[in-house]
Amino acid sequence: MLNISVRAALLAFASPALLAAAQPSAVSDEKIAELREAALEDDIAYGIVADLTTEIGPRLAGTEAEARARQWAVQRLGAMGFSNVRVEEFDMPTWVRGKESAHIVAPFPQELIVTAFGNSGSTGDAGLVAEVVGFKDYAAFLAAPASSIAGKIVFISHAMPANQDGSGYGNYGTPRFFGPKSASERGAAAIFVKSIGTDSDRLPHTGTINFGEADPIPAGALSVPDAQQLERVLARGRPVTLKLVMTPRQIGIQKSGNVIAEVPGRNPDAKKLLVSCHIDSWDNSPGVFDDGAGCGIVAAAAKRIMDAGQPYRTIEIVWFGAEEVGIHGGRAFAETRGGEDYHLVAESDFGADRVWRVDTNLGEDRKEEADALRLALYPLSIVPGRYDEAGGADIGPIMQKGAPGVSLRQDGSRYFDLHHTANDTLDKLDKEQLAQNVAAWTTMLAVMSGGIAE
Amino acid sequence: MLNISVRAALLAFASPALLAAAQPSAVSDEKIAELREAALEDDIAYGIVADLTTEIGPRLAGTEAEARARQWAVQRLGAMGFSNVRVEEFDMPTWVRGKESAHIVAPFPQELIVTAFGNSGSTGDAGLVAEVVGFKDYAAFLAAPASSIAGKIVFISHAMPANQDGSGYGNYGTPRFFGPKSASERGAAAIFVKSIGTDSDRLPHTGTINFGEADPIPAGALSVPDAQQLERVLARGRPVTLKLVMTPRQIGIQKSGNVIAEVPGRNPDAKKLLVSCHIDSWDNSPGVFDDGAGCGIVAAAAKRIMDAGQPYRTIEIVWFGAEEVGIHGGRAFAETRGGEDYHLVAESDFGADRVWRVDTNLGEDRKEEADALRLALYPLSIVPGRYDEAGGADIGPIMQKGAPGVSLRQDGSRYFDLHHTANDTLDKLDKEQLAQNVAAWTTMLAVMSGGIAE
Repeated sequence: MLNISVRAALLAFASPALLAAAQPSAVSDEKIAELREAALEDDIAYGIVADLTTEIGPRLAGTEAEARARQWAVQRLGAMGFSNVRVEEFDMPTWVRGKESAHIVAPFPQELIVTAFGNSGSTGDAGLVAEVVGFKDYAAFLAAPASSIAGKIVFISHAMPANQDGSGYGNYGTPRFFGPKSASERGAAAIFVKSIGTDSDRLPHTGTINFGEADPIPAGALSVPDAQQLERVLARGRPVTLKLVMTPRQIGIQKSGNVIAEVPGRNPDAKKLLVSCHIDSWDNSPGVFDDGAGCGIVAAAAKRIMDAGQPYRTIEIVWFGAEEVGIHGGRAFAETRGGEDYHLVAESDFGADRVWRVDTNLGEDRKEEADALRLALYPLSIVPGRYDEAGGADIGPIMQKGAPGVSLRQDGSRYFDLHHTANDTLDKLDKEQLAQNVAAWTTMLAVMSGGIAE
Repeated sequence: MLNISVRAALLAFASPALLAAAQPSAVSDEKIAELREAALEDDIAYGIVADLTTEIGPRLAGTEAEARARQWAVQRLGAMGFSNVRVEEFDMPTWVRGKESAHIVAPFPQELIVTAFGNSGSTGDAGLVAEVVGFKDYAAFLAAPASSIAGKIVFISHAMPANQDGSGYGNYGTPRFFGPKSASERGAAAIFVKSIGTDSDRLPHTGTINFGEADPIPAGALSVPDAQQLERVLARGRPVTLKLVMTPRQIGIQKSGNVIAEVPGRNPDAKKLLVSCHIDSWDNSPGVFDDGAGCGIVAAAAKRIMDAGQPYRTIEIVWFGAEEVGIHGGRAFAETRGGEDYHLVAESDFGADRVWRVDTNLGEDRKEEADALRLALYPLSIVPGRYDEAGGADIGPIMQKGAPGVSLRQDGSRYFDLHHTANDTLDKLDKEQLAQNVAAWTTMLAVMSGGIAE
């Protein structure tokens, strides 16, 4: 920040706006602290999450519900005072859920609660009856000969733990990520996996899958308790037959879109700050943790900066479309931009619980900036993490084009209780932790803003 | 207990069996302690619960699933070595679930998760579209004029707390217990209540209702998060229209039955000890807390006494049928017995968590016996409760005929998270608390046995 006497001297021959546009500056520690503390009382983010998830509800990519969400978003972001609010449309292949039910036919007749994965094949209305072959984990499934799988309904379990950093998902999600394609290639009739989740509710976790060149077969998740029940049934050693009806279908190419808004910077030519989330959700919940919260957090933070004064750098707010089903929004976005357009890109898409760590990959020459950010976040109980790693699903494509990233990592301890289930609802949201997120993002934007003209 | 020298003298002229049959005696404190401590390691109850709920699953009263459960029960109780194992059949009117779905049509289109209450009317396959009228609690609903309800879909909320003694249910369950009849009488098109539950899962709580002379209308529960969502939607002040499809139906008179087994006492003419549970469950879960656990607990306790020696009094084990849908089993049972046949009756039907209090209503002249029981249970962290109150749904009718009761009250803190939902599954069961239940029941039977001949 310029000191008063220098500023007075400069004011003698230049308008403040022109002056401020000329070069970036640092925001004072006092100003950052003021913005950070005020944001801990934020209710803007909660308002966005509550309104979006109440007035729209579930918003599956490519459907009319997602289109309603975009309309809602344009209206809301405009009403908040952002500039240049618009939708950038793109086309995407669209899958929709159908009927879904599963019953053990023998030896112990009873229903099991299942849900189809995105891009699952269909059994047809008549359904499918076949014997179940069970595997304790993905490795056991991989090791099985095709002859033991062909014509069967494959069931794969796992032992996913809840971890603060969410690392259970990557390590134990393999049955969903890779199982369907492999099962199809080996001639399985269908495949079910234990939900990639850490709860004990009879609400299965959906998610997207990719068959590559393999034929789509019916593929889905059993809820955690239902998977445990099937394991107990299988453990009794008698052949287990399942009747399955799942009738999802591909409905062809549909429209989706990214909703974009801006806080115009004083220097339109300066590299921008991109803050983002995704507006689509799975079809089984209103998507509060995934990812209504993220949209509330980044918009609230940008609004708080805008209200504090004009930043040197333009803040671009992107609510991506069609993340869940294949990151279509993130890829469409990166096609029309260069990595060099951005001073940083960041995404909030890991729920609504507190930020606990900050990671950056701003590059060797920006370590001082990364350190300023770490220091500014420290009062929020956010620990410093890596200098060489950041990311996010939707910002992945633009980062591949060279955009540097900042990751404000959220506590994932209960994220996979809710992830991709019907239980991802507003009552789970902790307002205090949500506001801490807003404080972290506001702080980050202030530190990275290049100065805020009051 | 007789002391050694008296016993020796008596043995000179009477066989031990005859002697023991002649009169009740007390079991020594040491023997009670031994039985109690051993039962804390019980795995019999868990085996029953796990096998019943795995091999049968849900078992709605009057259906073939409940019939399979009775068959299973006869086989299991026989294999455990009990005597006189049999089914006492009775007839009952039977209701079965159909399709069920609800969608907000306007102003914010989205699905709400609902389930029909037992005895709900049907919308027919075409469904029903009507405006929603919401009430914050049962009192507000009662106060509303019929004109505000007629033709509408009534929604009633409440503020049920989780209490250890389960008292939230009685006090906040009124919207379900009394709402449907009253709504029908005032011309409502249908009625929904916030689930009578304390969880935040999108799994609605079913339960039985009674329309009396009123016409059955579609009646059911919204899950707790869905009820909160509907409250938020209503709070936005625009008319809310709901499309409802619920097609349950009455399928007429069907067979149900009580499964009965005995540990024959040394004195067949002595008043008996009745220990009970119910074997039916709702159709949406395998009924672990409600009430597979109860059946495991009482059978395990009776088995432990039987294995310790022959009790003076006969222990009658009853796994009642058709409790959930109107206590048909308990009423059929009481029709063929007198209250005077029983030294005590007791029922385990409040989950699988620990016994925390003992209540009795053995009568003024049996206070000493009640006190002996309180003392014997004290080491299990069970506090003494009332002398003048005991009960249970299925034993209600026989208690009305004068049978005295003992209630080993279970901790209900999480009972209404699971009660009548799909989430009532084996993974929720805490083996240590289940074994504590068995220890409490074993202790109770030992104290009340009239002596156990080794």
